[in-house]
Amino acid sequence: MPALHLLSPRGFRAGAVYAGLKSKQTPDVALLVADRPAAAAAVFTTNKVVAAPVIVGREHLANTAGRLRGVVVNAGNANACTGRQGEKDARRMCQLAAAATHDHAEPEQFLPCSTGIIGHMLPMDKLERGIIEAGLNLGDSPEHASLFADAILTTDTKRKSAATQFRIGKDTVTLAGVCKGSGMIGPRMALHAGRSRPKAKHATMLAFLTTDADISPVQLRKLLARATDGSFNAVTVDDHTSTNDTAVLLASAASGVRISSPPAIKSFTASLSEVCQSLAYQIAADGEGATKVVKIEIDTAAAPQAAERIARAIANSPLVKCAMHGNDPNWGRIVSAAGLAGVPFDPDKCTLTLQGTPVFRAGRPLPFDAAQVSQSLAAPEVAVRLSCRIGNSAATVWTCDLSKEYVTINADYHT
Amino acid sequence: MPALHLLSPRGFRAGAVYAGLKSKQTPDVALLVADRPAAAAAVFTTNKVVAAPVIVGREHLANTAGRLRGVVVNAGNANACTGRQGEKDARRMCQLAAAATHDHAEPEQFLPCSTGIIGHMLPMDKLERGIIEAGLNLGDSPEHASLFADAILTTDTKRKSAATQFRIGKDTVTLAGVCKGSGMIGPRMALHAGRSRPKAKHATMLAFLTTDADISPVQLRKLLARATDGSFNAVTVDDHTSTNDTAVLLASAASGVRISSPPAIKSFTASLSEVCQSLAYQIAADGEGATKVVKIEIDTAAAPQAAERIARAIANSPLVKCAMHGNDPNWGRIVSAAGLAGVPFDPDKCTLTLQGTPVFRAGRPLPFDAAQVSQSLAAPEVAVRLSCRIGNSAATVWTCDLSKEYVTINADYHT
Repeated sequence: MPALHLLSPRGFRAGAVYAGLKSKQTPDVALLVADRPAAAAAVFTTNKVVAAPVIVGREHLANTAGRLRGVVVNAGNANACTGRQGEKDARRMCQLAAAATHDHAEPEQFLPCSTGIIGHMLPMDKLERGIIEAGLNLGDSPEHASLFADAILTTDTKRKSAATQFRIGKDTVTLAGVCKGSGMIGPRMALHAGRSRPKAKHATMLAFLTTDADISPVQLRKLLARATDGSFNAVTVDDHTSTNDTAVLLASAASGVRISSPPAIKSFTASLSEVCQSLAYQIAADGEGATKVVKIEIDTAAAPQAAERIARAIANSPLVKCAMHGNDPNWGRIVSAAGLAGVPFDPDKCTLTLQGTPVFRAGRPLPFDAAQVSQSLAAPEVAVRLSCRIGNSAATVWTCDLSKEYVTINADYHT
Repeated sequence: MPALHLLSPRGFRAGAVYAGLKSKQTPDVALLVADRPAAAAAVFTTNKVVAAPVIVGREHLANTAGRLRGVVVNAGNANACTGRQGEKDARRMCQLAAAATHDHAEPEQFLPCSTGIIGHMLPMDKLERGIIEAGLNLGDSPEHASLFADAILTTDTKRKSAATQFRIGKDTVTLAGVCKGSGMIGPRMALHAGRSRPKAKHATMLAFLTTDADISPVQLRKLLARATDGSFNAVTVDDHTSTNDTAVLLASAASGVRISSPPAIKSFTASLSEVCQSLAYQIAADGEGATKVVKIEIDTAAAPQAAERIARAIANSPLVKCAMHGNDPNWGRIVSAAGLAGVPFDPDKCTLTLQGTPVFRAGRPLPFDAAQVSQSLAAPEVAVRLSCRIGNSAATVWTCDLSKEYVTINADYHT
């Protein structure tokens, strides 16, 4: 079976070109188009400072009742803090995208996304040429999928992509996605501005998901929100929620498989989680300056929110992240980070394991071979598991280590 | 007038010796002793993981109704996560301190403090010799004050000390203090375990304050808690609340000036704030790897807690801290950090100034000379002021920049 990609789900085409928005000469303007109006759902940043494309995207989803023809994306400029002109520009992107499909699509059927520098007006002349050119290059080959995946990247060092399939009877449903991450990553995305979840925060991450399932927009929204909480919203690089974070899922119905029965919903949910978690993991692994992924697993916490807050307190502690970078089995920083989360936690009851080795239990460090555990931390993925033993709730958060390279990237970059 | 120091307030003596707890051969065991029982108040970490000396210190303050003879301190070992033996050792420190004063002091009249590595038992033989020796070296000279200030340092690169005086009629009251900070600094201290403030978190900071004012323990507690919120609790280096954070204030009454009238309370409050803020500032300036202090001032926020949360969100953003390190006037990171604080904030109403230069107003960046503002950021103290213009509340938080040196210190240190 050939490798699956963003355009493996039937009914989608993509086009991407270099329009001169990035300094690096790689694609930076892209279109993802559904052949027919697709059921659509999206989650957006909960930052109070939202970029123009987020404002316009929310509006378009509402006005079309979740039926989109596609998305239009650029990298290199976030179109954030750009006022009314920024909103006009985001709307103009959708007009150009609708025109570029050459089949009577409406501007409101497009969702605009931007990522890059904040506070600069989009170079609309370049963008206009780019969108028109991308529309002339639409296709559904693996190369088209790869170019789209490349066009959304900024300081990312790797293309991020995931896909899976499941069967309902004799029919196959395909789910796929691409994303970007890197820095300013601490997403806490929600369906609505009005439903913002104060507990959440993240960075510019964009994710574009496709499926050929036949599913209602209402159902899609529900399932995307749930999948986001267990994936994108569980990643943190620097806990800095961006102004542009967006994840959008389009369902073309081209497989002819209706997702309405409980088993079908269950299969779809599992596949969507698989794709979103794979993408989220790739974001953590490619965090700015990262040399490893750190998976923080909390169990037996007092409540779901307590589990999440403990996981985030550990994942966002610069001291823990530096220790992980140095392969230091520094259980003291981890346990004290759990203690500062502001939720029930009792060091006298918990057990902490690093890469499977118990290092702390019942208020005291355990004897362990420090050199051996340190060596086990020198891995591309490190597992930190903290059993609180005061309840039944669990949470998992993915982060990365904090390296000098992160400081270099973010201190030397100039506005 | 000779320079004031920790022992300028009448009625105190200190002694400090090197007992072999630190690898560096500088003082690491110290006593601060009041000639007679002094009114005492202390605030402690609100981390759920508390070190043995914090447990014992709270108990001693309660049992003596806030009347102490002194404090006994060691650096090099935090006596945290050391179980029942750790508590016994902390009590033993107080026994030794009481004996070392040679004038019938009770063990419960001492407050123990420790700072250093977590999870290791105190080397009680060394500590015992150290406390006895410190007791033989008590004195009130500037040199005694300096040795005490040095004995509490760990990775600090500088001695931290502050003092002031005020007059009531013809009488003079002196207030002084020393402290330590450096890493794991995100103090959120409160009077009681039971009154822990979930909003607060910090690192191992210890502060020892003296005054010769005559003031009741109840009044002292109130004023110390208030001064702490506006000083130590407003500092963050890495937002990692330590297991040992403690600030203690002893009042000897030796000046004969009773602090009970509103003007006296006002003068005392102002002086205490001045000393605590100076010490807090010195902690921020000497944060691990810090090259500058960043003062985050929020005004016209919706509510006091909102102002504080916005200030902390900015102060703790690694992206903002890296930008400060690189002298980058990156207003986008600052405004978006305000937006992710989870409290009311409207970018369309706010004004942001960096070192006095307005760079963002009403949702849009302002034209400014980037090279000139960048140059102004290359200073030992940088002022970031964000006027929210949606209410009447203000908050100030001090932090430092994030440098590669911070990563070096915390990735290369091994447990």
